[in-house]
Amino acid sequence: MTHRIAVLPGDGIGPEVTAAAVQVLGAALPECTFREAAVGAAAIASHGTPLPQETIALGRESDAILFGAVGGPGFDDVTPEKRPEAAILGLRKAFGLYANLRPAFAFAGLESRSPLRAELVRGLDLVIVRELTGGLYFGPKSLEREDGVLTARDTLVYRDFEIERIARVAFDLARARRKHVTSVDKSNVLVSSQLWRRIVGDVAREYPDVTLAHMLVDNAAMQLVRDPRAFDVIVTENLFGDILSDEAAMVTGTIGTAASASLGGPPSARGFGLYEPISGTAPDIVGRGIANPAAAILSAAMLARFSLGETEAAERIERAVAATLAEGPRTADLSDAAPATSTEFTAAVIARCR
Amino acid sequence: MTHRIAVLPGDGIGPEVTAAAVQVLGAALPECTFREAAVGAAAIASHGTPLPQETIALGRESDAILFGAVGGPGFDDVTPEKRPEAAILGLRKAFGLYANLRPAFAFAGLESRSPLRAELVRGLDLVIVRELTGGLYFGPKSLEREDGVLTARDTLVYRDFEIERIARVAFDLARARRKHVTSVDKSNVLVSSQLWRRIVGDVAREYPDVTLAHMLVDNAAMQLVRDPRAFDVIVTENLFGDILSDEAAMVTGTIGTAASASLGGPPSARGFGLYEPISGTAPDIVGRGIANPAAAILSAAMLARFSLGETEAAERIERAVAATLAEGPRTADLSDAAPATSTEFTAAVIARCR
Ligand SMILES: CC(C)[C@H](C(=O)O)[C@@H](O)C(=O)O
Ligand SMILES: CC(C)[C@H](C(=O)O)[C@@H](O)C(=O)O
Repeated sequence: MTHRIAVLPGDGIGPEVTAAAVQVLGAALPECTFREAAVGAAAIASHGTPLPQETIALGRESDAILFGAVGGPGFDDVTPEKRPEAAILGLRKAFGLYANLRPAFAFAGLESRSPLRAELVRGLDLVIVRELTGGLYFGPKSLEREDGVLTARDTLVYRDFEIERIARVAFDLARARRKHVTSVDKSNVLVSSQLWRRIVGDVAREYPDVTLAHMLVDNAAMQLVRDPRAFDVIVTENLFGDILSDEAAMVTGTIGTAASASLGGPPSARGFGLYEPISGTAPDIVGRGIANPAAAILSAAMLARFSLGETEAAERIERAVAATLAEGPRTADLSDAAPATSTEFTAAVIARCR
Repeated sequence: MTHRIAVLPGDGIGPEVTAAAVQVLGAALPECTFREAAVGAAAIASHGTPLPQETIALGRESDAILFGAVGGPGFDDVTPEKRPEAAILGLRKAFGLYANLRPAFAFAGLESRSPLRAELVRGLDLVIVRELTGGLYFGPKSLEREDGVLTARDTLVYRDFEIERIARVAFDLARARRKHVTSVDKSNVLVSSQLWRRIVGDVAREYPDVTLAHMLVDNAAMQLVRDPRAFDVIVTENLFGDILSDEAAMVTGTIGTAASASLGGPPSARGFGLYEPISGTAPDIVGRGIANPAAAILSAAMLARFSLGETEAAERIERAVAATLAEGPRTADLSDAAPATSTEFTAAVIARCR
């Protein structure tokens, strides 16, 4: 049986790092077939829209999407739905990818890259479970002139079942880990957070073996810097997850290893998903062949695990990346002397995969 | 002429730290008179409401409010407007305190307390200018059952003039500092952020001597950990400011020195304001006499500067706190051996104020 992977390289370093991920995944799982489609600013250039219908169609015919990055200069004055970023938001919505898993993991050998003191980061292993199809991202928006005053509105909307299903994802995940969930909200101000807290608390009762702590988002932003290893699984709404996952990635010392999975169902039920490095387009290093492909390769490993059910291959890729990060060669972002190119790093990972 | 200060101690360690701040302010400026009123959970207990009318009335008769902290256990299932926190939100609204200044400053001698490596933090000196009376905090909220589905809504609202006036505060402040403003938004997703970015850009044109950079909030959360000294003045909307200012405080190594001013006009125009440590109620150490009063005392210094026009006294207090933090004695949160009590720390500051 073949595994059908849709590859959406997108913009910036997206094409460079997805090419690396495709190579590694193909080497680890020869039964994968890859088909490419346009997305982001590249798709605006080629198709006049950030998310062409044929890109969505390719996704529907595939077992999973390997996604690069979207974004570009010159879209500052363009409304959100016409920007390159609309592509990733559109894909999340079109495929109902409500569960975004973002691990923050301190790889051995990289402790000294962290802005935090090494002893606070060594062994760090947390996962942020970010709700991905609700909240301010998809609620009603408006910009109106009212009595001469320009007024902008975004709406943060959550429905009970949206909170319930993402809570289950977090508790299921915690069960296979250190059995601790931190639910992050702003329930002292937001009604949506009050509903969030209540429903997460209800779901928790079905998981007596997992402990639950509630934390306000401002405090969570603080604790991630103070003692990140105190966390196991963090579950939170869309925008808080966006902010905290980038912060957590930087705490590990690099966003070059920050992978992510966006799923439409529980991670245990093997199904369709979208996999992307969280680092973005990195415009400053595009086309120089020096981008760190580790995050894209680790995203491909998540793809193998969650969408293909190929656990053994996923672990093989993850071990190969970990060994390459520990022993080298490393790309310029993680190396002071004689850095490897993206290609050299990828080749080293593939050699260790075999 | 006397200066009339309203003291609102509130809950948790609020009474302990405001008492210290009152002592220091009284010693530095004997012409201050202090009157106290109830707020927060304490006011719910004594008056049945977190923000009694007479507390607001006392504020109106005063030049400034010195505020402690509000919050308490047992309010989790209570709607936001009946919680202790409603008091601080109500005060911000009642007095139109739209400009929240939150410095993050690395005091000499405390570098080793930071979770970040000392060389990344030494000399850190940034100010977050947080918009305080708009956004998700004060927009319409609802919780409704629609076709059997519980749906919660919070609305993020910004009007053009609200953005314009807070931008001016940031640029004015930057002019007296290192002349750099970073405006933080989420303009690739939120319409309110697009309006924000446009208006901040417009205001920037009136300040050709100040440079402006726009940054997405997820990236800002990352950069505050990676290289906090790259920032001078950060201006952002209410909830982003809440999150980033707590993160920035922790980056300095302690929230025990994090002061804040909430103003109803530009900081240059001496006027009414509310001053509070951002650390909160610290339930774990209440009543033990060990809370760090530095943030409350530094808030009192901001009060002297912005509401009383007593620049010399403000600087005297700030120098005394800095010297005490550098040379000791320090409270338990900042000291490994033989920590000082709150009272001893305060006495040391007062001795250095003279
Ligand atoms: C590009 C942007 C719309 C996106 C988001 O905010 O979700 C990105 O920051 C992410 O985290 O995947
Ligand atoms: C207590 C709470 C409502 C408040 C806020 O979110 O503004 C606090 O976190 C703060 O930052 O002053």
